[in-house]
Amino acid sequence: MTRPSKRAPDEMRQVVIERRVARYAEGSCLIKFGETHVLCTASLEDKPPQWLRGQGRGWVTAEYAMLPRATQVRTRREIASGRPSGRTQEIQRLIGRSLRAVTDLQALGERQITIDCDVLQADGGTRTAAITGGWVALSECLKWMHSRSILKDIPLRDHVAAISCGMSNGEAVLDLDYVEDSAAQTDANFVITGAGALVEIQASAEAAVFSETEFNAMLALARKGIAELVALQKQALA
Amino acid sequence: MTRPSKRAPDEMRQVVIERRVARYAEGSCLIKFGETHVLCTASLEDKPPQWLRGQGRGWVTAEYAMLPRATQVRTRREIASGRPSGRTQEIQRLIGRSLRAVTDLQALGERQITIDCDVLQADGGTRTAAITGGWVALSECLKWMHSRSILKDIPLRDHVAAISCGMSNGEAVLDLDYVEDSAAQTDANFVITGAGALVEIQASAEAAVFSETEFNAMLALARKGIAELVALQKQALA
Amino acid sequence: MTRPSKRAPDEMRQVVIERRVARYAEGSCLIKFGETHVLCTASLEDKPPQWLRGQGRGWVTAEYAMLPRATQVRTRREIASGRPSGRTQEIQRLIGRSLRAVTDLQALGERQITIDCDVLQADGGTRTAAITGGWVALSECLKWMHSRSILKDIPLRDHVAAISCGMSNGEAVLDLDYVEDSAAQTDANFVITGAGALVEIQASAEAAVFSETEFNAMLALARKGIAELVALQKQALA
Amino acid sequence: MTRPSKRAPDEMRQVVIERRVARYAEGSCLIKFGETHVLCTASLEDKPPQWLRGQGRGWVTAEYAMLPRATQVRTRREIASGRPSGRTQEIQRLIGRSLRAVTDLQALGERQITIDCDVLQADGGTRTAAITGGWVALSECLKWMHSRSILKDIPLRDHVAAISCGMSNGEAVLDLDYVEDSAAQTDANFVITGAGALVEIQASAEAAVFSETEFNAMLALARKGIAELVALQKQALA
Amino acid sequence: MTRPSKRAPDEMRQVVIERRVARYAEGSCLIKFGETHVLCTASLEDKPPQWLRGQGRGWVTAEYAMLPRATQVRTRREIASGRPSGRTQEIQRLIGRSLRAVTDLQALGERQITIDCDVLQADGGTRTAAITGGWVALSECLKWMHSRSILKDIPLRDHVAAISCGMSNGEAVLDLDYVEDSAAQTDANFVITGAGALVEIQASAEAAVFSETEFNAMLALARKGIAELVALQKQALA
Amino acid sequence: MTRPSKRAPDEMRQVVIERRVARYAEGSCLIKFGETHVLCTASLEDKPPQWLRGQGRGWVTAEYAMLPRATQVRTRREIASGRPSGRTQEIQRLIGRSLRAVTDLQALGERQITIDCDVLQADGGTRTAAITGGWVALSECLKWMHSRSILKDIPLRDHVAAISCGMSNGEAVLDLDYVEDSAAQTDANFVITGAGALVEIQASAEAAVFSETEFNAMLALARKGIAELVALQKQALA
Repeated sequence: MTRPSKRAPDEMRQVVIERRVARYAEGSCLIKFGETHVLCTASLEDKPPQWLRGQGRGWVTAEYAMLPRATQVRTRREIASGRPSGRTQEIQRLIGRSLRAVTDLQALGERQITIDCDVLQADGGTRTAAITGGWVALSECLKWMHSRSILKDIPLRDHVAAISCGMSNGEAVLDLDYVEDSAAQTDANFVITGAGALVEIQASAEAAVFSETEFNAMLALARKGIAELVALQKQALA
Repeated sequence: MTRPSKRAPDEMRQVVIERRVARYAEGSCLIKFGETHVLCTASLEDKPPQWLRGQGRGWVTAEYAMLPRATQVRTRREIASGRPSGRTQEIQRLIGRSLRAVTDLQALGERQITIDCDVLQADGGTRTAAITGGWVALSECLKWMHSRSILKDIPLRDHVAAISCGMSNGEAVLDLDYVEDSAAQTDANFVITGAGALVEIQASAEAAVFSETEFNAMLALARKGIAELVALQKQALA
Repeated sequence: MTRPSKRAPDEMRQVVIERRVARYAEGSCLIKFGETHVLCTASLEDKPPQWLRGQGRGWVTAEYAMLPRATQVRTRREIASGRPSGRTQEIQRLIGRSLRAVTDLQALGERQITIDCDVLQADGGTRTAAITGGWVALSECLKWMHSRSILKDIPLRDHVAAISCGMSNGEAVLDLDYVEDSAAQTDANFVITGAGALVEIQASAEAAVFSETEFNAMLALARKGIAELVALQKQALA
Repeated sequence: MTRPSKRAPDEMRQVVIERRVARYAEGSCLIKFGETHVLCTASLEDKPPQWLRGQGRGWVTAEYAMLPRATQVRTRREIASGRPSGRTQEIQRLIGRSLRAVTDLQALGERQITIDCDVLQADGGTRTAAITGGWVALSECLKWMHSRSILKDIPLRDHVAAISCGMSNGEAVLDLDYVEDSAAQTDANFVITGAGALVEIQASAEAAVFSETEFNAMLALARKGIAELVALQKQALA
Repeated sequence: MTRPSKRAPDEMRQVVIERRVARYAEGSCLIKFGETHVLCTASLEDKPPQWLRGQGRGWVTAEYAMLPRATQVRTRREIASGRPSGRTQEIQRLIGRSLRAVTDLQALGERQITIDCDVLQADGGTRTAAITGGWVALSECLKWMHSRSILKDIPLRDHVAAISCGMSNGEAVLDLDYVEDSAAQTDANFVITGAGALVEIQASAEAAVFSETEFNAMLALARKGIAELVALQKQALA
Repeated sequence: MTRPSKRAPDEMRQVVIERRVARYAEGSCLIKFGETHVLCTASLEDKPPQWLRGQGRGWVTAEYAMLPRATQVRTRREIASGRPSGRTQEIQRLIGRSLRAVTDLQALGERQITIDCDVLQADGGTRTAAITGGWVALSECLKWMHSRSILKDIPLRDHVAAISCGMSNGEAVLDLDYVEDSAAQTDANFVITGAGALVEIQASAEAAVFSETEFNAMLALARKGIAELVALQKQALA
């Protein structure tokens, strides 16, 4: 059984991380998972969101959007309907939670960092690319703050990265592209730290329910993929 | 280590399912997980949503909302901000996917069933109560259709139910109430069929990342809870 | 000439008021006018609305909504169109004005009480049930405040209740249900205090204009109905 | 006891109706109740609203708005909040119902007439001026249709006009201006036909509840005012 | 070649400016360019917009709208779509910029003047009428402030007026009405001061691109028109 | 007098056009005016917009947006306010008109091409870059259609490009960057065809009114800039 992309079941697409691509942002990178390209920027604000004021802690939040022609067929801008779709909101909440899980918000102090993830081209896995690249932009931003003595230490506890897995024709496969994603029976996204701790699991029966064995096979693949992504993050920042 | 509610780690709250509570709906139930009360109704429409017309299949969708004083402190109605929050949209998408996973949409034919889940009182776990009660309302609706010869068979492949688990002070616990949910390090929702197949897993590090061992402990508890919920569903429909 | 419900022209539906149904609200009741069921809760806030700050007075306001399957055919949630309908706004303004007419806002002090009226089931007369039940929830809330020494006295000047009347086949009838309401030539809502003073009159020619004699016949019926409702309010609070 | 305007209790402001003021509308008038000025236009459309198609009947609807500087202090445009206020919706529903009560919608045929009532200057009583002037614009429009043989007869059963009354310092007064309206204990709007039949009554306790005697005093004043308004409508159309 | 209106190529429509038409506004005028009628009011506020606070300067802004039956065929109110159209926003930004260009915002002090331009009747050229009449309303407002010693001097540097020109059948023409505007190959709006300085030029190829010679012919006509408008402004204020 | 960028008054920033940057679009380019980077894509749809159906003609329209961190300080996404700003709408209308001015819509047939212009980085002049790059994307799309025999000929009458000019310290300068734009007394945008015909002129007094001589100086500079841009468009497409 071969995958549409001819990749081995445990083979990720080629991942490229190019940092410092946005001239004005405090941190940024362009991350590519094959034909999926996401521009991630980190923007520092001097105060935390309204509801957190006066508590001595900071916040990391994320926003996510897709350019209209990132997709094979043009997608209507969300502004046309006046509000972000449920899918968009779900994704940006996921990115925010994932990045906060490895950030020491106390040490960040009363500030907010917004990670904007804008999908320039979409071929499946945009949310996992956004988390993985978002961590690089966040990391760059924190180093920038450190270099200007805004922070004494870098308040990051670990790397965090994300990857999708799926059950495709009864076999667990790693890093689905759009074609594979559309056909998968089950779709799962894993967010895992550099040390291998779990941050988020979202597994969903699309066309068929799944067994615990299948779930474990996907998790094992994810661990392999995350290890590679963390290595690439390290290399990009080096 | 005792839970705030004095329940054992693997002990659910008392669950009560009262069906046929809405005079006009084709199916309905009021489901209580302790102090969490959700009114679930099923409404049949003669045609599927626009985007599915002419494909010979039906659709099951869900909407979710909370009465403003379901909560300890009054919550502003979502209409005041003009749109459902990200959380609301995330929950209603989850309920819909969960119910579709056990429904034979082909056999349903070109129709739509909308499951409305309105939280009358909220003490944690509203989404899991909504899925578990939503299945009862859906089931009642399909039986109503069958009794009127709209359907030859009941197009349901299995039961589906949902339960939350969490890591609380380092221990896995079943069916979090609001107090426990607010304090949990990790929060996970499991949607599982009567036969024990997995439908959805959403696990999220709230205050601390989690290990695979912890995840497996939560999954084991969830399996126990789901078995009890499915037994209650059967009893309610008897 | 008989009414669809076989009731006498001056006969109300069975009215039931069950108080303390919402665990968290400062006051609440479930009121039933036959098959019309409205859940009314009172929520206390420590400060008045923005525009009233610093004037030493409080405010009572109301919000009204219907569950989507309260009705015979499912009604789309108002959130789907992004704003409350004209009818909803008209009703919530009416409930608020009616309750304020018997409340001593000066004595309430710089606070706000919000009365939420959520229709669980609708068979005509939801706004009159909401006012009648809203008064019970408000009253419970004020007693709760008094019992906690937030208020020295109960700042309520009188009971207030509401009932609909109509001209149906040339005859004045009391307390229209949905079938009768749809067919009535004229539709009138009366809000009257325990002492018999008038608070609001809304009379509207639906299918035919009406005479002063007809109006007076409806008003006389309304007075009879209000007296019964006030007696039921007293009994519920006893 | 004198009124702020020195008018007698049963004395209306000077009312002026100038018709054919809008070059393009099928019917129009500018109506002045003292310093309250409302521009009313009637616009004919060849088809009824969507929900009425194919039933052989027509529709009359109304829209109401105020110019931002119609008022003493500038009022924010409703477009700024993205939706008409509850008050605006209540008023436009009232105007529409009032005009439909005297129109033979069957005889109008499958068409819609929209009455736009735009308040150029506001000194109280804008809704009653809008109904009274709206009838003139509607009437002009129907005559225009008749003159072009679109209609065989004028499908109007009677005149309709509206006036406000109030209880001011314990006395019933006719046609409140802004100052009086703000201070009135009770505020009532009456819509009455040329033949004296009742169309709408909206009476509301503002600062104090009211008795049946007071209500009847206001109704008697309203009848006097309506008679004068109908005479002015006749004169304007002559 | 004659124009539809029989006017000479360099002939404006009859322009009439009637000031002090709005009882409550600090400044106002009704301006007519032939059958185009715009009501302009100036409203003074004691503080500048939020973003300008504390800078010692004031602001002049404008809002623009059309009554629904200002046009030959009724136009839907913008409130129905929940937001001002692109065209409306473009026009109100243009009016605001044009008036600010001749106002000494420093001398105005920390205040805001809002110019509301409401089109009562539309026959082409509404934005140019709004600017020309808006200046009169602004001027009246500033004089009112001066007369009450709110301002020591009138902080207006010059007159400003606006006129449209077009290329119609190869010929430059002044002050297009609706029929001419719809048919013009090129449409240009010029905003010019009393001293002849340029404030805004907006020239747009509608049906055909245009040459520099054509542009200069339109500009020459505009200068002639503006001179006439400024004379009329002076006369109106005399 | 030197410019902040040290450029000569008639010197443009370095302009780079890279085409075929969007994998899925029918036409695309990334255009850079110095540090201003705009991604332009052309998307073909098989039918024209609703209002143009059945007239045998096609349509070219444009949408414009900025990534939140395109700017020096992060800009809030427009989705947060539920609607595109006035500025955004003005720009996208301008781009659309400019491209339609050189397109033979009749020859395009009943189709629509949407040009999306998304600003990745903003340093002034985004709208002029968008028009210049939009023409390249449109041109690529039309060639793609021609190559697939959807069109017999390329329905483009000419090149079109745009450039800004300004009066800066009394001197006319070409192609303003952000710093210069913020400080300019006058700001003008010119849209001109390959043959030198004028398509759009938008000149606006920002800090000071301007003379005809100044305007002509800016126009002369614009002509020089447009000639260079058209040469670059040709080179890019070669």
